[in-house]
Amino acid sequence: MPTIDEQVALLARRCERIVPEADLRRKLASGRPLRIKLGMDPTAPDVTLGHAVPLRVVRQFQDWGHKAVLIIGDYTARVGDPSGQNATRPMLSGEQIDANAKTYVEQVGRILMTDPDHLEVRYNSEWLGTMTMLDIIRLTSRKTVSQMLQRDTFKERFEKGSEIHLHEFLYPLLQGWDSVKIDADVEMGGSDQLFNNLVGRELQQDEGREPQVVIVTPLLVGTDGTMKMSKSKGNYIGVADPPSGPNGMFGKIMSLPDALLESYWTLLSDEPKESIARKIAASPRDAKVELARRIISWLHSPQAADAAEAEFTKVVVKGGVPDEMPQVAVGTGPHRLAALLAKAGLTASNSEGLRKIREGAVRVDNVKATDEKAELRIEKPTVLQLGNRKFVRLVP
Amino acid sequence: MPTIDEQVALLARRCERIVPEADLRRKLASGRPLRIKLGMDPTAPDVTLGHAVPLRVVRQFQDWGHKAVLIIGDYTARVGDPSGQNATRPMLSGEQIDANAKTYVEQVGRILMTDPDHLEVRYNSEWLGTMTMLDIIRLTSRKTVSQMLQRDTFKERFEKGSEIHLHEFLYPLLQGWDSVKIDADVEMGGSDQLFNNLVGRELQQDEGREPQVVIVTPLLVGTDGTMKMSKSKGNYIGVADPPSGPNGMFGKIMSLPDALLESYWTLLSDEPKESIARKIAASPRDAKVELARRIISWLHSPQAADAAEAEFTKVVVKGGVPDEMPQVAVGTGPHRLAALLAKAGLTASNSEGLRKIREGAVRVDNVKATDEKAELRIEKPTVLQLGNRKFVRLVP
Repeated sequence: MPTIDEQVALLARRCERIVPEADLRRKLASGRPLRIKLGMDPTAPDVTLGHAVPLRVVRQFQDWGHKAVLIIGDYTARVGDPSGQNATRPMLSGEQIDANAKTYVEQVGRILMTDPDHLEVRYNSEWLGTMTMLDIIRLTSRKTVSQMLQRDTFKERFEKGSEIHLHEFLYPLLQGWDSVKIDADVEMGGSDQLFNNLVGRELQQDEGREPQVVIVTPLLVGTDGTMKMSKSKGNYIGVADPPSGPNGMFGKIMSLPDALLESYWTLLSDEPKESIARKIAASPRDAKVELARRIISWLHSPQAADAAEAEFTKVVVKGGVPDEMPQVAVGTGPHRLAALLAKAGLTASNSEGLRKIREGAVRVDNVKATDEKAELRIEKPTVLQLGNRKFVRLVP
Repeated sequence: MPTIDEQVALLARRCERIVPEADLRRKLASGRPLRIKLGMDPTAPDVTLGHAVPLRVVRQFQDWGHKAVLIIGDYTARVGDPSGQNATRPMLSGEQIDANAKTYVEQVGRILMTDPDHLEVRYNSEWLGTMTMLDIIRLTSRKTVSQMLQRDTFKERFEKGSEIHLHEFLYPLLQGWDSVKIDADVEMGGSDQLFNNLVGRELQQDEGREPQVVIVTPLLVGTDGTMKMSKSKGNYIGVADPPSGPNGMFGKIMSLPDALLESYWTLLSDEPKESIARKIAASPRDAKVELARRIISWLHSPQAADAAEAEFTKVVVKGGVPDEMPQVAVGTGPHRLAALLAKAGLTASNSEGLRKIREGAVRVDNVKATDEKAELRIEKPTVLQLGNRKFVRLVP
């Protein structure tokens, strides 16, 4: 077991802020199992490598004998966004919430220990459902309008003159109330959650409880190299993504901009920083291969990492054709090539297909197809390829 | 029964705004009894002539066959102001709320008809007490932060940088929800309630109900001649104040600045406007006497008005001594005069008493007392007088 100093040093690698560190040291020194809170929005059950960063920290705590407490925010998900302003906050049924929570727990299970000594899953309807108007008046009286408007997302919208509906001010308070009700010792989150999570600390203090320490991790930049990784922006790698194939982890990691390598290595591995710098300086490409192998070994298995690398080498590096690919029955035809691309799901429209053919990005049975007017008959299984990594087997 | 046009003209006298008038005409024309909502804050049960202005309008509606619905805001009074910022919003017990509501109904009974066909009294805990968090999230989602900040009192405080606690944003919504729950046709209030009462109209519309018409009356200026009349500012005349005596209606009205006469006559009587102007032009003093007589006749009785005028003439105009006054037993003494003034409750301190003696404002049995060192023995009932209108009978 590492000393307190060693523990704090290990956490520091992927903790942008620990508020306050002195409280964390005191809690770690107490010797009792700490309760590490992590909130989950049931309207967005997909766990990405971005979420994996705070989850790795939670796992560190579990390894030291502490308990992760996962809060499923089911109560507010049942309302959605009643103002209808925010399409990303749909109203969910109880069944949808349960299904999403199950999916979520399966995904985080790739990172966290899930036995009952190390993981507790709680639904916040347990305590929010019984609050009365008086409770809510007391809760809302704890915060002022200007305090809420200090929060980045509110501040920006307020200054731009875009609308903030009053119930949006309730959500940080409800999330903070969760910390009171589950007696959180630490709350983990991305750095955009700092304000929300400090509300929990303050509410615990108001209630005369030992306040939680707020730990926030840096936001992982998405595969596009600029924006925060998120499902809605399409720039994400999911922790349950397949190891290989066109949407597999291996290919996505190999396509990362070189500039992201240092942060990905730092946040998603435990390799010493000097070693990371050496690897990247020696060969960004090799550093990507090794990173891809490590992440797949971690989230799938070492065997899956071997297979994904072999497949990637065969298909992309050597221009070969993979062993496995989706199969689509199209009939014998004759077919225009652009129509086949769309039927196979490789392009979104006929015009996109025509453009790809003109660009020379389309191959039929590994032969470049450039005649956009040609008509094809599909008499036997035929491999249709778009770019380096997208393959579909056409059958009659 | 007056026509719709006549009714609207009668209302216009003391209605600053009718929002919208077309809706009011439609409701009046429907022939059904309308529900006229009037809210009451149980933390402030004193009814002043300021409140009498909207209450007179409610009474007009009652005279035309409509029903006053008095909402006792007991639910929020049970919380008070949990932020502790606002001493005027103390937390009340159920007993205090009931006692205050009873006092309030007794006072408004001087103006309103109180039989069950014309008055319905409702406590808003009836519907607010059963609201869940989901109901509250839906309710708060109806309004935006900038809409709330348009309200004068919030706007001013926000711009001055003074704190607005979040629960304060809930109150206008809860008050508006009252209108939904009691199916208000009209909500009456002072002009500082326009924003709050329009929230009720909007919530009714959101709920697919026929929305209430909001009628606001001008704010009556207090006896100081500058600020809105209110108990907390001490510049008020209560509808249950005694007709005469040092805190009686007659004396308070006679002390009004002349500049207030026109608004008091307009808002608190039905005298035609031209006649009011003539009376004031002829003699402000006579206009005050007549106003005092009318208000006392209205809120007490014509006999009380006669008696109050006679008493006022005897004591103030002719410098006489009233028949009735408080009696205080002080023992035979000897007493210093300043000490007697304080014991009698006429001054707050010994030094105030000394100052009043030096000013020549103190009389003993109708003889001016100027020797601040004199010692008095009280062997028999003795009248101690401060200024023109304050008397105490001292007994041994």
